[in-house]
Amino acid sequence: EESAKNIEEQVGRVVEQAKELQDSAASFISKTSSDEQSLRHRALSLDSSIRRLRSLLHSLLSHNLLQPKLADKLQEELERATCVVVDGDAASFLPGKAHGGFLRMFLGPINVRASRKDVQLKVKEEYNSYRDRTALLFLFFPSTLLILRSWIWDGCLPAFPVQLYQAWLLFLYTGLALRENILRVNGSDIRPWWIYHHYLAMLMALVSLTWEIKGQPNCAQKQSGVQLFLQWAMMQGVAMLLQNRYQRQRLYTRIALGKAKRMDVVWGETAGVDGQLWLLCPILFILQGFEAYVGLLLLKTALVGVVSEWQVFFCGIVLVIMAVGNFSNTVQTLMVKSRF
Amino acid sequence: EESAKNIEEQVGRVVEQAKELQDSAASFISKTSSDEQSLRHRALSLDSSIRRLRSLLHSLLSHNLLQPKLADKLQEELERATCVVVDGDAASFLPGKAHGGFLRMFLGPINVRASRKDVQLKVKEEYNSYRDRTALLFLFFPSTLLILRSWIWDGCLPAFPVQLYQAWLLFLYTGLALRENILRVNGSDIRPWWIYHHYLAMLMALVSLTWEIKGQPNCAQKQSGVQLFLQWAMMQGVAMLLQNRYQRQRLYTRIALGKAKRMDVVWGETAGVDGQLWLLCPILFILQGFEAYVGLLLLKTALVGVVSEWQVFFCGIVLVIMAVGNFSNTVQTLMVKSRF
Ligand SMILES: CC(C)(COP(=O)(O)OP(=O)(O)OC[C@H]1O[C@@H](n2cnc3c(N)ncnc32)[C@H](O)[C@@H]1OP(=O)(O)O)[C@@H](O)C(=O)NCCC(=O)NCCS
Ligand SMILES: CC(C)(COP(=O)(O)OP(=O)(O)OC[C@H]1O[C@@H](n2cnc3c(N)ncnc32)[C@H](O)[C@@H]1OP(=O)(O)O)[C@@H](O)C(=O)NCCC(=O)NCCS
Repeated sequence: EESAKNIEEQVGRVVEQAKELQDSAASFISKTSSDEQSLRHRALSLDSSIRRLRSLLHSLLSHNLLQPKLADKLQEELERATCVVVDGDAASFLPGKAHGGFLRMFLGPINVRASRKDVQLKVKEEYNSYRDRTALLFLFFPSTLLILRSWIWDGCLPAFPVQLYQAWLLFLYTGLALRENILRVNGSDIRPWWIYHHYLAMLMALVSLTWEIKGQPNCAQKQSGVQLFLQWAMMQGVAMLLQNRYQRQRLYTRIALGKAKRMDVVWGETAGVDGQLWLLCPILFILQGFEAYVGLLLLKTALVGVVSEWQVFFCGIVLVIMAVGNFSNTVQTLMVKSRF
Repeated sequence: EESAKNIEEQVGRVVEQAKELQDSAASFISKTSSDEQSLRHRALSLDSSIRRLRSLLHSLLSHNLLQPKLADKLQEELERATCVVVDGDAASFLPGKAHGGFLRMFLGPINVRASRKDVQLKVKEEYNSYRDRTALLFLFFPSTLLILRSWIWDGCLPAFPVQLYQAWLLFLYTGLALRENILRVNGSDIRPWWIYHHYLAMLMALVSLTWEIKGQPNCAQKQSGVQLFLQWAMMQGVAMLLQNRYQRQRLYTRIALGKAKRMDVVWGETAGVDGQLWLLCPILFILQGFEAYVGLLLLKTALVGVVSEWQVFFCGIVLVIMAVGNFSNTVQTLMVKSRF
């Protein structure tokens, strides 16, 4: 009896608490969403004021209505305000970049934008370390195949390990493309080309899977396409490792600055690593040249008729497109940076 | 002079506003995250109280310390409280399901949990309509291939369209697996098997891509594996359409109930569509039987030696595993439902 009464009371209390919790949760949600709305509104209007003032400044300066020294000072103040809006806590209330077809196709209408800056940085850090891990595999996997080919397999690659490798490539590039799209939604300024580049690489991996790996006799010649493909992949690993070293350092500078809350220095953010960029780029150009060369060799192989499959021709074309695009985008990046 | 002074003032104001915005955003973020923390705490402790009381109720009842009628009433009240916590606005403050390796592999550490119930329902609705669209293609694509094969291609499938189809399958299953993982994180009770099922389907699509489509002479025999595969895919389309009809109706019942805020009826949620389930299941069982049959035929083709590729054998095994798993999970679902 005692415990029966007791439990009745307890259940009643729990039901009461559930109702209270529901009410608090509902009011919390409506309160935060209206607060968010107003912050979003303020961030947007501030952003447009900054834009307006910046163009006003330019026109005043070009009509000689402003002392250059004052203009410089005002310019700098505007930049500082921009940094506060774009890199500070307010950034998550500015409208994000649209999600893009690729993400919607794979994930549906889910929001992948992190609202807190530290989470966004964590996502970026994880992306970098993911790339590091894959860059090592990028070197290891194809070089193992090529070494085993001459040591054990008598110059003739068996189909299965190569296909396993190609499936891994497909999986990898899909992951990279998804992650880069997510970074973009989270405010990264990554050039669209680097993402398209991974779409092309996905397509190439997919096509290479359907590419029949012929065996003896005379397989050294029949497999010359596959072999070039593997060599290109190794080179890709080298490019990735170098690039990662640079990007990681760039991110660390940024996190350090963010932590110190020295927003006013962010403007000169890349200053510390700009020197490295000028070292990295010549190597990248050489690798891009090699990429185009492998593409052209594949085209030659396909057209001269040693290997007549359409896959070889297709991969050749895609490699050449990738090389040209990579080159032109690297040059454009350098040009934008040297303008400051 | 005038406008110079004016712009100086305006820039000053903008800098001031940027600082204010940064402060409001920072305090908003810290305020909401501490409020969230406390709501999370309350939701968790309420959840555990409910659990505790439920087991207390059971033990009291089994020791005959409680009138059955009172026990029923209390039980129902507890269920109502559970519904409020699990299906109401408070639900987003209960800890979500872990993100799982598949999502982390493809997306990195990004959070894909929607905090609002209406967004979660929208995600689910979109998933259903995505499935609808793909189910139609599932019927259309392989049947076109099979029809063209006998009408135009003289009983001999050309490699390219089949590979295009297989690539589409791979892409599709990857999308479904990603979306289902996201639904799971957002509180869906989907059985893990249905997700594993799509991992297996992804693997099968990948393997089938490496499967060489042999041409003349005698291709009807050499292609018997591919043909069985296409037939299975059509059947999959039928299963998907039927299942979608049922799932859609289930979701609509749920949304309608949610909108009417009649939490207390949610408990009998599936009552309206339970009848349909008993109609759907026999058809599903037949399809699952056909799936196993196709798998066994593939195994036979591979073992008797008409087609000696490992891919045929592999696809056969996977199909049989899928059929057995689908069957046993459908039966388990029915058993769980008939217990109420
Ligand atoms: C040239 C290069 C070093 C410039 O890097 P950078 O200084 O970071 O360039 P940007 O300042 O324009 O970067 C803007 C953003 O894009 C990102 N980004 C730049 N290049 C990228 C790439 N190739 N892949 C992924 N992200 C990249 C940066 O991390 C940065 O992100 P953030 O806004 O979140 O900080 C870099 O683009 C690169 O390595 N390109 C060559 C790649 C290549 O050719 N590979 C294949 C060789 S065969
Ligand atoms: C048997 C079946 C109809 C039961 O569906 P159900 O009544 O929704 O099952 P449950 O109540 O266990 O569902 C729990 C959750 O899992 C989801 N779910 C169930 N089966 C699913 C499936 N096969 N795929 C995706 N999601 C599924 C439901 O939508 C529900 O989601 P929610 O919690 O977000 O509302 C369904 O599982 C099914 O169609 N299975 C057969 C599939 C099959 O065999 N296909 C191949 C044939 S060859």
